[in-house]
Amino acid sequence: MSDSMRTTSRRPLSSEDLKRLDAYWRAANYLTVGQIYLLDNPLLKEPLRPEHIKPRLLGHWGTSPGLSMLYVHLNRVIKQRDQDMIYIAGPGHGGPAVVANTWLEGTYPELYPSVGYSEEGMRRLFRQFSFPGGIPSHVAPEVPGSIHEGGELGYSLSHAYGAAFDNPNLVVATVVGDGEAETGPLAGGWQGNIWTNPVTDGTVLPILHLNGYKIANPTAMARVSDEDRISYFHGLGYEPFTVEGDDPMTVHQELADTFDRVFDRIAEIRAEAREHPTRPPRPRWPMVIFRTPKGWTGPAVVDGVPVEGTWRAHQVPLANVRKNPDHLKELEAWLRSYRPEELFDPTGAPAPDLRELHPRGLKRMSAQPHANGGLILRELVLPDYRDHAATIDGHGRTTAEATKVLGAWLKDVVRDNMDRFRLFGPDEVASNRLGAVFDTTDRQWEAELYEVDEHQAPHGRVMEVLSEHNCEGWLEGYTLTGRHGLFTSYEAFIHIIDSMFNQHAKWLATTNEIPWRAPIASLNYLLSSHVWRQDHNGFSHQDPGFIDVVVNKKSDVVRVYLPPDANTLLSTMNHCLRSRQYVNVVVAGKQPALQYTTMEEADRLCERGLGIWEWAGNDEGGSPDVVMASAGDVPTLECLAAIDLLRQNLPNLKVRMVNVVDLMRLQPDTEHPHGLSDNEFDTIFTTNKPVMFNYHGYPWLIHRLTYRRTNHDNIHVRGYKEEGTTTTPFDMAMLNDIDRYRLVIDVIDRVPGLGERAASLRQKMIDARHEARAYTREYGEDMPEVANWKWPYDD
Amino acid sequence: MSDSMRTTSRRPLSSEDLKRLDAYWRAANYLTVGQIYLLDNPLLKEPLRPEHIKPRLLGHWGTSPGLSMLYVHLNRVIKQRDQDMIYIAGPGHGGPAVVANTWLEGTYPELYPSVGYSEEGMRRLFRQFSFPGGIPSHVAPEVPGSIHEGGELGYSLSHAYGAAFDNPNLVVATVVGDGEAETGPLAGGWQGNIWTNPVTDGTVLPILHLNGYKIANPTAMARVSDEDRISYFHGLGYEPFTVEGDDPMTVHQELADTFDRVFDRIAEIRAEAREHPTRPPRPRWPMVIFRTPKGWTGPAVVDGVPVEGTWRAHQVPLANVRKNPDHLKELEAWLRSYRPEELFDPTGAPAPDLRELHPRGLKRMSAQPHANGGLILRELVLPDYRDHAATIDGHGRTTAEATKVLGAWLKDVVRDNMDRFRLFGPDEVASNRLGAVFDTTDRQWEAELYEVDEHQAPHGRVMEVLSEHNCEGWLEGYTLTGRHGLFTSYEAFIHIIDSMFNQHAKWLATTNEIPWRAPIASLNYLLSSHVWRQDHNGFSHQDPGFIDVVVNKKSDVVRVYLPPDANTLLSTMNHCLRSRQYVNVVVAGKQPALQYTTMEEADRLCERGLGIWEWAGNDEGGSPDVVMASAGDVPTLECLAAIDLLRQNLPNLKVRMVNVVDLMRLQPDTEHPHGLSDNEFDTIFTTNKPVMFNYHGYPWLIHRLTYRRTNHDNIHVRGYKEEGTTTTPFDMAMLNDIDRYRLVIDVIDRVPGLGERAASLRQKMIDARHEARAYTREYGEDMPEVANWKWPYDD
Repeated sequence: MSDSMRTTSRRPLSSEDLKRLDAYWRAANYLTVGQIYLLDNPLLKEPLRPEHIKPRLLGHWGTSPGLSMLYVHLNRVIKQRDQDMIYIAGPGHGGPAVVANTWLEGTYPELYPSVGYSEEGMRRLFRQFSFPGGIPSHVAPEVPGSIHEGGELGYSLSHAYGAAFDNPNLVVATVVGDGEAETGPLAGGWQGNIWTNPVTDGTVLPILHLNGYKIANPTAMARVSDEDRISYFHGLGYEPFTVEGDDPMTVHQELADTFDRVFDRIAEIRAEAREHPTRPPRPRWPMVIFRTPKGWTGPAVVDGVPVEGTWRAHQVPLANVRKNPDHLKELEAWLRSYRPEELFDPTGAPAPDLRELHPRGLKRMSAQPHANGGLILRELVLPDYRDHAATIDGHGRTTAEATKVLGAWLKDVVRDNMDRFRLFGPDEVASNRLGAVFDTTDRQWEAELYEVDEHQAPHGRVMEVLSEHNCEGWLEGYTLTGRHGLFTSYEAFIHIIDSMFNQHAKWLATTNEIPWRAPIASLNYLLSSHVWRQDHNGFSHQDPGFIDVVVNKKSDVVRVYLPPDANTLLSTMNHCLRSRQYVNVVVAGKQPALQYTTMEEADRLCERGLGIWEWAGNDEGGSPDVVMASAGDVPTLECLAAIDLLRQNLPNLKVRMVNVVDLMRLQPDTEHPHGLSDNEFDTIFTTNKPVMFNYHGYPWLIHRLTYRRTNHDNIHVRGYKEEGTTTTPFDMAMLNDIDRYRLVIDVIDRVPGLGERAASLRQKMIDARHEARAYTREYGEDMPEVANWKWPYDD
Repeated sequence: MSDSMRTTSRRPLSSEDLKRLDAYWRAANYLTVGQIYLLDNPLLKEPLRPEHIKPRLLGHWGTSPGLSMLYVHLNRVIKQRDQDMIYIAGPGHGGPAVVANTWLEGTYPELYPSVGYSEEGMRRLFRQFSFPGGIPSHVAPEVPGSIHEGGELGYSLSHAYGAAFDNPNLVVATVVGDGEAETGPLAGGWQGNIWTNPVTDGTVLPILHLNGYKIANPTAMARVSDEDRISYFHGLGYEPFTVEGDDPMTVHQELADTFDRVFDRIAEIRAEAREHPTRPPRPRWPMVIFRTPKGWTGPAVVDGVPVEGTWRAHQVPLANVRKNPDHLKELEAWLRSYRPEELFDPTGAPAPDLRELHPRGLKRMSAQPHANGGLILRELVLPDYRDHAATIDGHGRTTAEATKVLGAWLKDVVRDNMDRFRLFGPDEVASNRLGAVFDTTDRQWEAELYEVDEHQAPHGRVMEVLSEHNCEGWLEGYTLTGRHGLFTSYEAFIHIIDSMFNQHAKWLATTNEIPWRAPIASLNYLLSSHVWRQDHNGFSHQDPGFIDVVVNKKSDVVRVYLPPDANTLLSTMNHCLRSRQYVNVVVAGKQPALQYTTMEEADRLCERGLGIWEWAGNDEGGSPDVVMASAGDVPTLECLAAIDLLRQNLPNLKVRMVNVVDLMRLQPDTEHPHGLSDNEFDTIFTTNKPVMFNYHGYPWLIHRLTYRRTNHDNIHVRGYKEEGTTTTPFDMAMLNDIDRYRLVIDVIDRVPGLGERAASLRQKMIDARHEARAYTREYGEDMPEVANWKWPYDD
């Protein structure tokens, strides 16, 4: 039997220590139950009466005592070893337990002085929980020390590994619920150890909280054999340590002993790794299986059915306390079972010998600056992106790969920020043409290396794992702890983390309202391999709808950019990397494509967010007959090619060209901080002329953003309409009616009085579409005149 | 060493069998390379010339030879054992390999006669692949025998288990890519064995295709130790069998021997389980680790760098064949290395002795009816839902829990469809108040059972796993193989499977265009625990945006319903369960709420999709001053309460009440098959009167759906605007301005000429909001007059 599997017989806690530790835990449990139930009479100075009870009993008791016991014992480790540690509660619905601990160690009263150490403070602590105008029931941003809400289960380990990267002195104690352990993202989260360097990164200590039940079901992890469970964690590369029991005093001793051994092991692993540069890969990090009853120390039986140790303890074990005198009595007995008179003095403050148990100052997990990352955020050193500008020789005449140009700059960004910036992606940094970064750094990889490998090393700035959930969770954890990063993904597959984005956007929106939360770096997405260029993959890879998910969130935290070329991409990304508290979505192509803007023009365009391209239009500052607008690289190409056709064939038609980089500019300024005023919008898009808007994504979004504008009824939007397959770029454009020929037809159909010549051009366009389609089907590529089109005019 | 880990020394294939099996595999590989490269000269009757090569080389070679070898050996098993089997290619980008196999066994030519057994047929087979007007590069719906596209990686095992449920004679051979194995959903997919009954369900045989590399990276699974990998799968409850090598002849023998042992083991497990009703839980099912080189048998070295056995073999190993004569020569040598002259007769047909190797008729994996589920779909027996109607005593005056009423009917649906209907959910069937089904059935559960468990059994119709990915994947697999089901989820967390929904919707849209694909049952979602009633959970659980994701997909496959009460929910769900080829999203509450419709009214309303509630308005069929519209239960309640206030205080104001159940009715009939004609729309919503639309979700969607309507400029929408926390239901309504008081203010602000009385009512409403807010913050619940409001009028 390996060391990790034996049942300990060591009892590291003296009987005095044991008593105090248990008292601290009882205090946390008392405060937890108080939060769930009590409106008043917080110290039970008088017998409980119905009016002391909240009218709506909301919260989750089941996971709470386990969360608190772990918290209390981790405090012991921190004090013993002067360890920097943060605490991630995977079962984030155990909010009241974590709040109780942050209150006990004094952080809560410091940040929320009205909820201080007094009877009134404790009354407020109880009352505010899950109460209108109070605090949420989960480990929300309002809870000091939290970087993880835990409402939507599955992301605790991904957040934890993200927090650990580049924090060699930090331990991220991560409680994983056994319900959470059934989710896919969590199951994939364990493999973070394959990407974690034992010298330069911190340590994630996963603690599986095996309390056996979810809302109404047993958990899978609790109902497989011990052998299978141990084998599973061993197979994931961990050394599992098990603590199991339902007698608190015994479990205290076992847990203390186990943590002693676990933290010794962590120290050994780290020391060994530091001392042996050619060490074998992936040390076998410890993890803990903590098996204790759900709703431990709560009512054993209620109304004749077992509650403690079953799913019935999940939320509120005694549900009818106000109306059922027996329940009221049971609640009082439950609360008094913690012996509050020993735990708090008559003013409501924790007893002095309890206060000796928790760490001091910034070592308290609730006060750790790592968990309020903005406090310790160091600015990115951003080299001048203009040095990497694509040289253009006339508008729309030079070809470049936008992401490749960006990659050259990112290489410098990586070089200058070796301790604070990382790239995350599902195996696509190279395929997205950001490979230049490998001149400066490698892909971090803590598994075996083969001779054939390239840019793979135990330490590097690029994190590539074929798990969007890990990429997203790692980057979130990394930025939440004060660092910076960029997530590159296939555009379609970023939908895989829609819900993680939702949660993070909500987190940011909430922290904006919390004065003690310091601003963190934005979460930056680069979506390349986009809908219009899925030449290798086809329909399943075509989905530009992430933008639609994003714009549903609070306007003060979301930004969407569609730079049409390399220089606008550079300028945009520079802006995004400097920004704080946003989610920035940048969609850009990786294929060779025409370039439209000099660096100076790009900066100007990006600063304004949109602009009239005077070189492309022929309205010469006057009133146009039609406005041609575009957002996105392929739609911009087609838009310009359409303008070319119009100018050649209908030279009297006055065309204005508008390019939109910052999608949020389209919204009214009353709706979004980036929004154009109505006056500005009208000046650009006119109040009464047809606007043909060629858009990268689903066309309805443009209507949604502009429906309040004066000229909305004249805005005609083309975009992706779910037509697609494995085909050529121009065929894709035609399938979805965003192609140059279709745009010309649209203009002819919408601008009145164009006459005979327009009618014949219209027919020519119809014929051209047929011809292009036929050519493609015959030769398997686009017609040269289409594929090689360039802007033919001098400025 | 256990049996599963030993290296076999048995050689079950005679040298004749071995030669033929290998020839078959070579034929598949030849056809695969041909698809990727050749436009013409399919039989290499002349030396390869540049014009025989496709101009754009698109597809994925790397995984293909492995996929084909597995396919070929599974054919042997099928023939030997007369086994019903389907094949899921997790690495679905290996499309050309699967297409090659379906062509070799004759299914492809039967379904696509122009791509038959002739030189011209083979030419077309090659040419069409990844070619404009041809077929996609992945294992798309166009590929016979496929139920799994595999473009977005991660779902192969979930689909597989879904296909296996209630198919006791079926083996679902499931190739899992080692790239895919890094994803969270796949990592969580292995646990399907905990929910699979060895007597009443079929067998999933997972085959990990360990070829070592992704696009540009090694795979994690390939770079951990053998011991860890074996321990991992053992820990997941499987018995792993390893086949490893790069010499085809040796691997053929080992794979044949391993499959012999694996299928013997499967048969033993099933027989044991049948014979021992009190068997121990979760048999240790076999799985196979198949470790062979990426791009096996392709070019070993290209331009001086290793390709076979590395990531460089992922897509197209020789990239520049048209222009580089060396590459052209290497391609020809590669193709000829398969000795096509032995494999195909001069007309292009596979050699007769090859054709003896594949199974016949419906046993061919590409012709298995299970993989074209509509063919074997049996109708649901649907008992009369009207028998379960909620009795209502006047409109808006009776209280019921909508999902509870539905549950009583679902109990009967379950009872009458014990072999073809299942409920799927992440531990929420009971909490969503569908618990009545447990009178008829249990939660299926193949892990340990404890005394305390309720409704947990080795066989049951309810599948509860805290993994939305598994719920979705299982239900997709279940319906794709011809069965029916319902997925119930928290509304917010259905975003977890946004991307899976996207893929399934695309699958359905594509199959609509494929004549030989028979229609399957719709994918039905019941989203309860919705945004407005997150009393326990707060902001992280509030997100109604799944609807927005859904409506981005092709209008002929998506339907969204917002039944306002129990009877409309019954009627809607009855309709959904009868439907085919749709994704039906139904959002409904589980909390006690007012009931508005009798069963007859509900049927009429649901049939029309929306309707004027004459009992609620006072326009008496005439022209209203204002239209009050609602969609969703809570918005409908607030809308009616607002009408009550208006009728009491401004009796001369003519109000029309419209309720929308089927959201797609709002779109023009040119955009969606359910859309109202403009004329119908105008009749209901008027052409010029203010419309106050109180909507369940993000308000912009209503604008998006109605922006082409005559009266659009007068439509004012209220909905969820990302304000929320743990608070009372009415406080949530007020936070987002969908409450009755706000609606009255909106009406007063928008209907001209209402005079003095309206101005004073407006102030009263402002005061009422303050009062309600203050009451809630004081007492922690909603004011009784708000919470207990009922519709006060007789009809």
